[in-house]
Amino acid sequence: MAIRIASAFAPATVGNVGVGFDILGHAFPALGDCVRAERVLRPGVHISSITGVDCELPTEAERNTAGKAVLSLIGSAQPSFGIELAIEKGIPIGSGLGGSAASAVAAVVAANQLLDSPLSPEELLPHAIQGEAVASGSRHADNVAPALFGGLILTVGIDHPHIKRIPVPASLRCVLVHPHLNLPTRDARAVLTPTVSLSDMVWQTANLAGFLSACYSNDLTLLREALQDVLIEPQRARLIPGFERVKQAAMAGGALGCSISGAGPSVFAWCEWASADLIGTVMVKAFEEHDVPCDRWVAAIDGDGSRVLECR
Amino acid sequence: MAIRIASAFAPATVGNVGVGFDILGHAFPALGDCVRAERVLRPGVHISSITGVDCELPTEAERNTAGKAVLSLIGSAQPSFGIELAIEKGIPIGSGLGGSAASAVAAVVAANQLLDSPLSPEELLPHAIQGEAVASGSRHADNVAPALFGGLILTVGIDHPHIKRIPVPASLRCVLVHPHLNLPTRDARAVLTPTVSLSDMVWQTANLAGFLSACYSNDLTLLREALQDVLIEPQRARLIPGFERVKQAAMAGGALGCSISGAGPSVFAWCEWASADLIGTVMVKAFEEHDVPCDRWVAAIDGDGSRVLECR
Repeated sequence: MAIRIASAFAPATVGNVGVGFDILGHAFPALGDCVRAERVLRPGVHISSITGVDCELPTEAERNTAGKAVLSLIGSAQPSFGIELAIEKGIPIGSGLGGSAASAVAAVVAANQLLDSPLSPEELLPHAIQGEAVASGSRHADNVAPALFGGLILTVGIDHPHIKRIPVPASLRCVLVHPHLNLPTRDARAVLTPTVSLSDMVWQTANLAGFLSACYSNDLTLLREALQDVLIEPQRARLIPGFERVKQAAMAGGALGCSISGAGPSVFAWCEWASADLIGTVMVKAFEEHDVPCDRWVAAIDGDGSRVLECR
Repeated sequence: MAIRIASAFAPATVGNVGVGFDILGHAFPALGDCVRAERVLRPGVHISSITGVDCELPTEAERNTAGKAVLSLIGSAQPSFGIELAIEKGIPIGSGLGGSAASAVAAVVAANQLLDSPLSPEELLPHAIQGEAVASGSRHADNVAPALFGGLILTVGIDHPHIKRIPVPASLRCVLVHPHLNLPTRDARAVLTPTVSLSDMVWQTANLAGFLSACYSNDLTLLREALQDVLIEPQRARLIPGFERVKQAAMAGGALGCSISGAGPSVFAWCEWASADLIGTVMVKAFEEHDVPCDRWVAAIDGDGSRVLECR
């Protein structure tokens, strides 16, 4: 019998991961968005409700990341029915945690279950990218791909992105601290200089290459040396009150690296599992010393991506 | 009994490998330099002879890469004797094949055998870097490290470089074509713009990351997509008459990637072993159509680095 209602979860994501501006991201399944998709008679895509931590999002499908992603999906699948979406946001907007990507991914994963011939996750990717572009203004897979597939994901190429899952040493965890500041991605983009010096580029590429090599070879010494963003973080740090102190606290607590999640203001730290709690505590404390309240979570880096929660 | 005479070989190297400007290089053991080191009474380092394909090099130790490298070595080891070096160049100078690095590496590997307490290869690296800097004007390990250790080497950091050997799919070979043009490294550096656009940087870093991931995971499809230098090659290509045609010929012949070796003018192509001969032939033909005579070689990419040839 045809599925009438399906719901799906997609995790938050840490974009850039410091050294991989616009090309790296990893799933952070400690929080995420849920979308329920329901077959309806009225053709097209409709948003019936937006609930959760952030409700002030467009309910017009064309302007909503979840709606736009499903519009792209049904544009190619041409089902005989319409789809109504109920979005439950677990990820605050403007936090640098990939909330737009998570909604777009959860929406296509849920809506896909309603189709007579569901697509593979790989086939869903371009539709989720279309959706996420509504919010970010550009088609990037660095949040969408890890939200869909899980783990640490490298994206090569834009039009037909090649998606590669990078292994992560199993003992590592990601500590994520979300300061209660709203920093629109567009503001965080605007502070970036349009060019970089060749020598800084060499430095950053050495760190990126060292980071990837360290992940593949389980080399934590190199990981600690290489997980340093010398290009983007110095330009964005001033948008986040207390960032330098938070980073200092994380590194003093034993973190392997600490930088801005996506466009910020959330800050992530990679560390060994045993020190994750301590590092989270000192990071929160450092933000609070700057009168910035915050939330924090800890999650595995190599964790799951999106999943179907229910079909009936 | 103490060793009186030792000789060593160090291979040519392909610097940059397209996507890793100043940070990647691989050994190319089809050609290289040999240095014989002999204990002499006269203190210090002396160059007794320079023979082979390029003899017009400084014979003053301070100004010669091999001499300077051994000066650095004995500056720290403080032997009770002097060292005389006989250099046999197999690598043409100004070819983009890491000739300076090979001489510096072969010299320290040979001279090291004369010491009462020889150093490890890792301990020799900074001395070889000091030597190579005489020719290149800057301390880079991207040719020195693969000449010393062999294989495809990533160098992270400058003062205390972290050296990482990257695995290479075993079926691959490197075709190297050396056009008979002298292109000084300083000229090839001078054409580079001092800044790069952020978007080009993202493109190049995606390719670098894809290339490394492809090497680690034996993914030839991704390797073919990622082994593209979108930043440096477009600026240097015009210094090499016929480059575009040579590259086109290599790619049409089935190469996975083709770019400039080091600062040029030599051109390398990575390919599967079965197509190496054909690709070499079409690359040479394309250069000859531009009236540029050339040599060519084929070698494994994951090949050996320096080795001691004789001790007595």
